[in-house]
Amino acid sequence: MSKEITSRQEDYSQWYNDLVIKGSLADYSAVRGCMVIKPYGFGLWEKMRDQLDKMFKDTGHVNAYFPLFIPKSFLNKEAAHVEGFAKECAVVTHYRLKTDPDGGGLIVDPDAKLEEELIVRPTSETIIWNTYKTWIQSYRDLPLLINQWANVVRWEMRTRLFLRTAEFLWQEGHTAHATAQEAIFETRQMLDVYAEFAEEYMALPVIKGVKTESERFAGAVDTYCIEAMMQDGKALQAGTSHFLGQNFARAFDVKFSDKDNKLDYVWATSWGVSTRLIGALVMAHSDDEGLVLPPKIAPLQVVIVPIYKGNEKKELLDAKGKEFARLLKEMGISVKFDDNENSRPGWKFAEYELKGVPVRIALGLRDLESNTVEIARRDTREKMVVSMDGLPVKVKELLDQIQQSMYNKALAYREEHITRADSWTEFERLLDEKGGFIAAHWDGTAATEEAIKDKTKATIRCIPLDNPKEEGICILTGKPSSQRVLFARAY
Amino acid sequence: MSKEITSRQEDYSQWYNDLVIKGSLADYSAVRGCMVIKPYGFGLWEKMRDQLDKMFKDTGHVNAYFPLFIPKSFLNKEAAHVEGFAKECAVVTHYRLKTDPDGGGLIVDPDAKLEEELIVRPTSETIIWNTYKTWIQSYRDLPLLINQWANVVRWEMRTRLFLRTAEFLWQEGHTAHATAQEAIFETRQMLDVYAEFAEEYMALPVIKGVKTESERFAGAVDTYCIEAMMQDGKALQAGTSHFLGQNFARAFDVKFSDKDNKLDYVWATSWGVSTRLIGALVMAHSDDEGLVLPPKIAPLQVVIVPIYKGNEKKELLDAKGKEFARLLKEMGISVKFDDNENSRPGWKFAEYELKGVPVRIALGLRDLESNTVEIARRDTREKMVVSMDGLPVKVKELLDQIQQSMYNKALAYREEHITRADSWTEFERLLDEKGGFIAAHWDGTAATEEAIKDKTKATIRCIPLDNPKEEGICILTGKPSSQRVLFARAY
Repeated sequence: MSKEITSRQEDYSQWYNDLVIKGSLADYSAVRGCMVIKPYGFGLWEKMRDQLDKMFKDTGHVNAYFPLFIPKSFLNKEAAHVEGFAKECAVVTHYRLKTDPDGGGLIVDPDAKLEEELIVRPTSETIIWNTYKTWIQSYRDLPLLINQWANVVRWEMRTRLFLRTAEFLWQEGHTAHATAQEAIFETRQMLDVYAEFAEEYMALPVIKGVKTESERFAGAVDTYCIEAMMQDGKALQAGTSHFLGQNFARAFDVKFSDKDNKLDYVWATSWGVSTRLIGALVMAHSDDEGLVLPPKIAPLQVVIVPIYKGNEKKELLDAKGKEFARLLKEMGISVKFDDNENSRPGWKFAEYELKGVPVRIALGLRDLESNTVEIARRDTREKMVVSMDGLPVKVKELLDQIQQSMYNKALAYREEHITRADSWTEFERLLDEKGGFIAAHWDGTAATEEAIKDKTKATIRCIPLDNPKEEGICILTGKPSSQRVLFARAY
Repeated sequence: MSKEITSRQEDYSQWYNDLVIKGSLADYSAVRGCMVIKPYGFGLWEKMRDQLDKMFKDTGHVNAYFPLFIPKSFLNKEAAHVEGFAKECAVVTHYRLKTDPDGGGLIVDPDAKLEEELIVRPTSETIIWNTYKTWIQSYRDLPLLINQWANVVRWEMRTRLFLRTAEFLWQEGHTAHATAQEAIFETRQMLDVYAEFAEEYMALPVIKGVKTESERFAGAVDTYCIEAMMQDGKALQAGTSHFLGQNFARAFDVKFSDKDNKLDYVWATSWGVSTRLIGALVMAHSDDEGLVLPPKIAPLQVVIVPIYKGNEKKELLDAKGKEFARLLKEMGISVKFDDNENSRPGWKFAEYELKGVPVRIALGLRDLESNTVEIARRDTREKMVVSMDGLPVKVKELLDQIQQSMYNKALAYREEHITRADSWTEFERLLDEKGGFIAAHWDGTAATEEAIKDKTKATIRCIPLDNPKEEGICILTGKPSSQRVLFARAY
C-alpha cells in the first residue's frame, strides 16, 4: 500500500498539498480560494484555539463579536488602511436574487441595490473603532481588552491551503488604552503570548521582531511579528501584533477625558493569528510519511492497535486495549482503541502515521504472553518494546519527550539556517543554495529593501527584538548600517 | 438611582430592548440589521455554545468548517430551497474597490466583477452537499455526522436584537446516512438534545413538535421544532431539526453504493440553533429590574460585595470576601469579589441585578461580628442572612435551587398558557385577551392555516409529538379534524 505522498525532495509544494489533503486536514471547495476545513483539521484548530483563548483570558481579555460587514465609507477613513485592503475585498452590492423574467435563471435583482456597498471584513479595526466611539467617554472606560474569533475575507489571487486563502479563520484582538505606554506594553505582551504559544504548544521556535516600514500593517505605527523557519528554508510569518498609535481613534474620532478632564485620542493595538498556523505546523515538522503533530495540540495523542490472529484471544486483546485506553483517558490523554476489523493493522499504521498521531501502541498475542506492548513514536519513527506495567505513565512521559524533542529539532534546524552574509554575492548565493534567514546589513531605506526584493524575492522578515547593534555596510548599496536585519524568502 | 428600564406592563418590546442594551448583552451597529454582541452577551453565548458542543460530541458529532460563500447556481439546485432563501440574501458581485478617477472617492471597480455572484451563506446545505459528493462513495463512508459553528446572513427587513438579525451566529449540523430510518432517528435525537439543553440549562420548558407543511424548512421533508412561551404570551421557535430525505443528495447527485453494491441517494438531516436563544432566555425569565439568568449558563454565577465603612476593618472584610471567592471557585462556581471603591454598594447591587447574576453575597461589618452574610437570590429577589459556616456548600445548593425554581416558574406559566378553543369566537378572544398557545382543531389544509394567519397573525407553531388523537371540527371551516394543533402569535 502506498500513501502516494510526494517526497519533499521531489516537490516540496506538492508534498505540502498531499499532506493537507491526504492527511484529512482540509479540502478544496467549489468557491475560488476558499477551503473546507475537514473534521481532523478542525479538531487541530480547536485545540489551538482553545489554548490561545485560555491565554488571552489569562491576560485579562474577553471575547465579543462584531459585524461581518463593513460599510465602504469606513474603509476610507484611515488612509493607509484603505490602501492596504481595498484592492482585495469581497463587495456586497445587492440584497436579493430573483428569477429572470426573460428565462435567464436566478439573477441579481437590480431593484435590491444597496445604497452603500458593504465589504466583507478583511480585518475589523474600522467597524470596531466605530463601535468603541460609543463605548468610550472617560478614562474609567479604559482599557478595553477585547478579542474576536471570526472569519475574514481577503481576495488573494494566488491561494494555498491554510497558508493563503480568500476566507480564513482567525482571532483579532482590539484593545483601547489611555496611554501610548500602556498600548505598547499590550502590543509586546501579546507578541509574547504568541511566541509562547508557538514554542510551547506548536513546538515551533520563532524569532520575535519588528517589521520595517514597508512590511507594516496598513494603519499601524509599529508591527511586531513572530517569524518561523520552514523545512524548505523559507520563512513564515506566524503572528503579528500592532501598535496602532492614535490612528484609528483619530479616523473614528474616539476621544476620552482623562483624570484631569482633558480630552485626548485613545491609543490602540490589534493582534492576530489565523488558520495559517496550521500550514506552519505542517511545514515545520512533517516528513515524507505524513504529518507529525506535537502532542500538546494533536487532536488524537495515542492510538492503540490490536493485532488479531483470527479470533485467538481476541477478547483478551480487546480487554487489555480498552483498559489501557481507559487508563490513558483518566490521565487526560486523548486516545483511540482502533478495533475496526475491516482494516488490517498495516493499513492502520500507515493511516495514523499519515495523520501524525504522536504515539502508536501495538498489542499482539505475543505481547499478552510477555506482558509487553510495542510503542512507536511518530516523530522519530522509533519503536520500542516496553512492559505493560506502568504503561500509562510511560506514555505520558513519552508524549512530553516528543513535544520537547520536536521543538529541539525544529530549533536546531532554524539555528543552522540563520547565516550571515557580508557581500551581495554571498547574499545571493546563500539565498539560492541554502535558504533560511540571512542576517545582513541594510542601509535602512525602503528603496533598498524594494530593490533587494525585486532582485531576489527576499524580504526583510524582521529586525529581531534582541538585535545587537553592529556597524557595517549595506550589502546592496554599501551605505552605512547600524545593525543586521533578517532577510528570507517567505510564504 | 434609576436603571431606566421600561416595565413589561408599559411596553414589553421596549423592556426587551432595554434589557439587551442596558444589560450589556448587545448593541446596535453601523450596519443595517447587524448587531454587536458585547463581552457579557458573548460570555453567555460561550457558555451555551460550549454546553451544546459537548452534547453534540457526546452524540458522536465532529466539527468542521465550510466556506462563507455559496455560488449563486448552487442555491438554484434545490427548488424549495431557492424559493426560501433567494429573496433575502447578501450578494457579492465584485472583488475590488478603487479610487474613483473622477474624484468620487472609493468606488466598486467595474473591472473586478465576478463571473458568478456569490451569496453569503444563509444556511449551508448546498455548499456542504456539494462537498459531501466528493466524500461519499460507499456505505463505509456513512454516516457523516458533522456540525459547524458559523455566522450566517439573511437579509431580514425588520430586525430585533438577537431575535431576528441580518447576521447571526449559530450552529448547523449536517449529517448523511445510508437509510431513511437512520436519518429520521438522527433528526429526532438532535431535537431531544435541543430540548434537553433548553430545559436543563436554559431553564426553558419547550414543546417538541413537528411543523405543518407551510412552516417547513425550505428543502425539508419534515421539520421538527422546539417551541417556547414568552412572558407576553407569544411563542418563540427555539430550535429546529430537519429530515431532508434525499432532496439535497438528489440536487447535488450524491449517491453511495450499499453492501450489495447497489447505488442509492444519501439520506440527510440538518439542525440548528442560534444566538436567537439568547433572546428567548431574556424574554422567558427576566423582570422589570433586569435580566434573570439561570445559574448553569450565567457568565457570572455569584458576586460578593463588601460593604465598607471607610477603612474600618477593611482588610478583614477583603480577606473574608476573597476567601469565599476562592472557596467557591474551587467548587467550580464562577464568582467575582467586587471591591471596586469607585462605586457604592447600592450601585453595585442594581448593576448585578440588571445583569442577572443569580446570587449576590453582601458582607458588612456587622456580618463579621455575627459570623453571617446576607445572600440575595436574583430570581425571587429574596434575601436571607446565613452563617458563614459551610457557606460555599449553601451557595452551591442555592444555585441548583434557583435553576430548578426558574424552570418550574417558566413551566407553570407555560402550562397556564396552553388553552383549548372550540370555536372561532373563543379562539380570537383568547388570542387577544390571554395569548399563549391555543390548542384547536384545524382541517389540515394550508389554505385554512393561511386564512387563520391573515385574520389573526397566529400561526400553527407545531403539532406536538405526543399529541393525542381527538375527533373534532376545524375552528375556522367546521371541517372534520383528527387532532388539535398549537396556534400562537410568535416571534
